[in-house]
Amino acid sequence: MTDAGERRPEADRGLDRIVNLSDGVFAIAITLLILDIRVPEIPEGMVATELPGELLALWPKYLGYLLSFLGISVFWNIHNSIFRAIRSYDRGLIWLNFLFLMFVAFLPFPTSLLGEYGNYQLPVAIYAGTLAVSRLLLTMLYWYVTSANRSIAEAQDPATVRFFLIRGLTIPGIFLLSIAVSFYSVSAAIWSWVALIVVDAVILRRRSH
Amino acid sequence: MTDAGERRPEADRGLDRIVNLSDGVFAIAITLLILDIRVPEIPEGMVATELPGELLALWPKYLGYLLSFLGISVFWNIHNSIFRAIRSYDRGLIWLNFLFLMFVAFLPFPTSLLGEYGNYQLPVAIYAGTLAVSRLLLTMLYWYVTSANRSIAEAQDPATVRFFLIRGLTIPGIFLLSIAVSFYSVSAAIWSWVALIVVDAVILRRRSH
Amino acid sequence: MTDAGERRPEADRGLDRIVNLSDGVFAIAITLLILDIRVPEIPEGMVATELPGELLALWPKYLGYLLSFLGISVFWNIHNSIFRAIRSYDRGLIWLNFLFLMFVAFLPFPTSLLGEYGNYQLPVAIYAGTLAVSRLLLTMLYWYVTSANRSIAEAQDPATVRFFLIRGLTIPGIFLLSIAVSFYSVSAAIWSWVALIVVDAVILRRRSH
Amino acid sequence: MTDAGERRPEADRGLDRIVNLSDGVFAIAITLLILDIRVPEIPEGMVATELPGELLALWPKYLGYLLSFLGISVFWNIHNSIFRAIRSYDRGLIWLNFLFLMFVAFLPFPTSLLGEYGNYQLPVAIYAGTLAVSRLLLTMLYWYVTSANRSIAEAQDPATVRFFLIRGLTIPGIFLLSIAVSFYSVSAAIWSWVALIVVDAVILRRRSH
Repeated sequence: MTDAGERRPEADRGLDRIVNLSDGVFAIAITLLILDIRVPEIPEGMVATELPGELLALWPKYLGYLLSFLGISVFWNIHNSIFRAIRSYDRGLIWLNFLFLMFVAFLPFPTSLLGEYGNYQLPVAIYAGTLAVSRLLLTMLYWYVTSANRSIAEAQDPATVRFFLIRGLTIPGIFLLSIAVSFYSVSAAIWSWVALIVVDAVILRRRSH
Repeated sequence: MTDAGERRPEADRGLDRIVNLSDGVFAIAITLLILDIRVPEIPEGMVATELPGELLALWPKYLGYLLSFLGISVFWNIHNSIFRAIRSYDRGLIWLNFLFLMFVAFLPFPTSLLGEYGNYQLPVAIYAGTLAVSRLLLTMLYWYVTSANRSIAEAQDPATVRFFLIRGLTIPGIFLLSIAVSFYSVSAAIWSWVALIVVDAVILRRRSH
Repeated sequence: MTDAGERRPEADRGLDRIVNLSDGVFAIAITLLILDIRVPEIPEGMVATELPGELLALWPKYLGYLLSFLGISVFWNIHNSIFRAIRSYDRGLIWLNFLFLMFVAFLPFPTSLLGEYGNYQLPVAIYAGTLAVSRLLLTMLYWYVTSANRSIAEAQDPATVRFFLIRGLTIPGIFLLSIAVSFYSVSAAIWSWVALIVVDAVILRRRSH
Repeated sequence: MTDAGERRPEADRGLDRIVNLSDGVFAIAITLLILDIRVPEIPEGMVATELPGELLALWPKYLGYLLSFLGISVFWNIHNSIFRAIRSYDRGLIWLNFLFLMFVAFLPFPTSLLGEYGNYQLPVAIYAGTLAVSRLLLTMLYWYVTSANRSIAEAQDPATVRFFLIRGLTIPGIFLLSIAVSFYSVSAAIWSWVALIVVDAVILRRRSH
């Protein structure tokens, strides 16, 4: 089975499969998150009085669900932006993408950890680290396809490329910085992510207009 | 990575990805529902006598499975009706769709809650609220793409648009009303949803002919 | 949002979505089956001596995995045969398909029940009933699209249609008969399914050449 | 429902479905792996001191996640290489593919076993056996489509075919050999897989250029 080269239909199907597989992982990762929110077990006679409090006590789980759903959504948007310009693929692209997907598929574990022990520093650091590495891998994917115009149809505007790379290094950098913050205030670190995810999404929006 | 504008093939692939991702979440959400129905654990010697009763006692779980499967099926149908007319996409469409998917992916939790504590008012209210918000988000999606003819190929017939919007506000409105009903009768509220989901599906059917 | 009628590209995307959603449910159902086979918990010092026996003792779970994987594979093949001829869709097709998918997504529960209590009559009857109903719904799907040539491009050969309908009624009929057998011998009923699934697949194979 | 023969569009949709279903199983299998890494349960007052150690103690689970993710990624690459050349399909191809998918979907169980009892010989042997059989089934798929040029558009270069077959028999052969190694050293066997998966990926890369 030869290389992607000139045989277009073959190359296209492979590229479609990479994208489909990625969307499958995205879809499953965001849907699995809910499995971590378990219905509280309450003895028969006490449900009416206990249930409201028990459900409220799950709020760190809801926050984790929201945060990871939001984070994966932003990743999907960036992934979509990158792959829209891609016309062919090679092993490097496949493996970088798999590496990225490995961290997306891993995210439910730090999310679960955060939902359980969100007021401790270590889970906060692990969660921030996972987001930072995933985001960095997306930046590497972007760098990989734009440098030497590999895999893409037409040269990208250098200013746009520079903007994406700077942003793609700054965002994960701040995620890593939030680990330092978490030593002082765990909740400050968590809220910095919310801000960061929103800023990331908003910048993308403004730039694409 | 420029905007969808005139580059048709790129725009199409992105739109296909949004639809595929949505179908992935739909498929996983309806299939995960079964994980909530657990095989009862019965001591060795008592299986033959206990199993039938234990399986019958799971009926609220079966009802929840049926209800959520039915609800997600109706959501899929409406989602399909909306996206059939869409020709391009922008960030607003993506984020509205993600918000909708977040509630679809969340549904297994209220379903599980309903299967466990379905004779209490709170789970019934949470379930009704989740269905109402999901349905409202679909209406917002429809409103988003039809207002100013954004994303769609040709102007929709105003009467049809009005009909869809009225229906798209009435149905979630009645879901919210059922929360009030649930304070008086929990089972009346539950059966009103079954009626509502069926009516929703039947109206859609008649209108499209 | 008008009917499928003459607007081909719209109709096609909807049909693709039905097929994709179905394949999503098929893929998840066969992959979820493995979640039911749990690693046995053995105290530290006894692993070397106990593990082989504990893993062998899981054989009803392996059999259930194999059986349900095989069953869903056959269902997929028949589903693929039916949808290959379909050119358009209507609400009836969508709902029949969802009803079928509801039973495919349900199958992990009877499988789990069979793996736990496979030597009792009730789980065997429930499993046989689920396979029978799923298979009947596929026959109804086939009947729906071939009667009055609804949804398909060209009239089917009446002899072929008759053959598929007879087979599509006989196979679930024998599944139902195996419930009667299960009152006398549980394992005879289980082995009759294996035979039946294989026969079903082989008949399909011979006929299509 | 006649055979694939000359009706191209029908054949294509079926082939797309086989590929999509496979990608669904690949995506779910790699995403389900994370469900096996559970958050440790620690009493309230001891989290700060115990959590780091408890998380480190999960390292066999992380290794299993990494290993199985890597293994399935390599399988996906080979699967993609094989299917890129395929132009039509028959029942044999479908069933071989389902058999392969059955082992891919099964992999989370040996992974879980390895994560729990990775320092014992039996789980290591079961894991190696699963990888070996999956890899052999891919080789059989390749042999099936290239022998007599069934299903593919153009004859493959005999030297390339011979190379793929030799490699496709050698790799699973060495996996099987690692079972013998595991009787002497369990960790030597595990590290031999890592080497093997990497070699497998690298050979593929060099050959395709």
